[in-house]
Amino acid sequence: MSDIDIPEDHPRYESLLTRHRIEDGVDKGITSRQGLIAQGRGETFDYLLGERTIPSAAAAERAAAAYLLLAEHPVLSVNGNVAALVPGELVELAEATGADLEVNLFNRTEARMQAIVDHLREHGADEVKGLTADGRIPGLSHERAKVDSDGIGDADVVLVPLEDGDRAEALAAMGKVELVVDLNPMSRSAQSATVPIVDNIVRAVPNITRHARELATASREELQRIVDEFDRDEALAAAEQAIREGGED
Amino acid sequence: MSDIDIPEDHPRYESLLTRHRIEDGVDKGITSRQGLIAQGRGETFDYLLGERTIPSAAAAERAAAAYLLLAEHPVLSVNGNVAALVPGELVELAEATGADLEVNLFNRTEARMQAIVDHLREHGADEVKGLTADGRIPGLSHERAKVDSDGIGDADVVLVPLEDGDRAEALAAMGKVELVVDLNPMSRSAQSATVPIVDNIVRAVPNITRHARELATASREELQRIVDEFDRDEALAAAEQAIREGGED
Repeated sequence: MSDIDIPEDHPRYESLLTRHRIEDGVDKGITSRQGLIAQGRGETFDYLLGERTIPSAAAAERAAAAYLLLAEHPVLSVNGNVAALVPGELVELAEATGADLEVNLFNRTEARMQAIVDHLREHGADEVKGLTADGRIPGLSHERAKVDSDGIGDADVVLVPLEDGDRAEALAAMGKVELVVDLNPMSRSAQSATVPIVDNIVRAVPNITRHARELATASREELQRIVDEFDRDEALAAAEQAIREGGED
Repeated sequence: MSDIDIPEDHPRYESLLTRHRIEDGVDKGITSRQGLIAQGRGETFDYLLGERTIPSAAAAERAAAAYLLLAEHPVLSVNGNVAALVPGELVELAEATGADLEVNLFNRTEARMQAIVDHLREHGADEVKGLTADGRIPGLSHERAKVDSDGIGDADVVLVPLEDGDRAEALAAMGKVELVVDLNPMSRSAQSATVPIVDNIVRAVPNITRHARELATASREELQRIVDEFDRDEALAAAEQAIREGGED
């Protein structure tokens, strides 16, 4: 899904691609200043993790795929950095799991909403929710609370990558199964998740899609077993240990 | 030196002030996109350090002050983020140590150079070097190598906060005493420093100034003793341990 010509075996392929996509996101009005700073915060956590998917994150990604396949109405929430970094990969995940895509911004402006919707459509998305904004998440201030009532408002399982802590907690309080991608295992978003995925989003989303495709013919019993066997507290502790000590192989 | 009205006893004072100054830096053309991402990278290291000056950093700041006071020609190198974050604090440090200020940019453009010089003058700087650019640091490509021959080119002691690894190594190779402020103790900049200061620049610069004022009447022997007693390898190890394990009290 790269738009630039970087050979995939380049040692800094992932890093160069990420940097290019973020820059492109700024040019298109998708990535905000706060998004650039947030990108940097994530880069340090990823650096300390060794820029790899640790085993506990791989288990979380498989559990997330199982949750999305078991869901009645799964929704993938998309903010500016997510749209900039993995637009095509999100469209593939939505297709592999039958999930809706919904744009949700912490700093919501109509221009940024529309730019992100357009960007996702350029990368193959059909329907993109988020512009209707006729639903509200209880406990959040007006602009932050907006969702589509037939999107996140109605979802039983929501993937919320790189999400603000307040909103992650408010979604969890609504009783939704929350799948969070966040490189900081100590963040409120990761701590409030049903499935915290402590991995770089450019690795996490394709990994979840791969698991979803592998599990496409699995029985509900098998999917439920994968979900039941995932231990979120163990995963958070393993991720923190990997960051703090460089460990967990 | 704040330009906004945040009470100093606000629990997030330092964080809010930093955020405001970085935003202001973007508006003024001082802080680049890469600078915003770098700011985020630093925020995570600071978060893991507990957003405090650890004891080994305090010792490094005192040693840095002693080196500046012992120097024949000390120079404080200023890039975009440094100018945005601590403009007035740098002017105070230059006054306390008799150091020159010199602007040095990794992505050098005349517009950014001039904006930074103007910003430092607004914060009380008299002479600001860097625009002459008639000297070169050996071993770097053309634009990256530019310095003033009567500034960094002539300096025996240089404070280089938030510096790129290539340039930090090249300055060290010139035999200069290099005082580096960098929140990543594993970075090439920190590793190549005579005095690595693993601390947030908004704490580090005022701390060095405070030490310099305290040591203003100290004998050269006393200053030399402080320099000799500082152990860079021990400081780097302590900082990495603090980040990895949250330890060192």
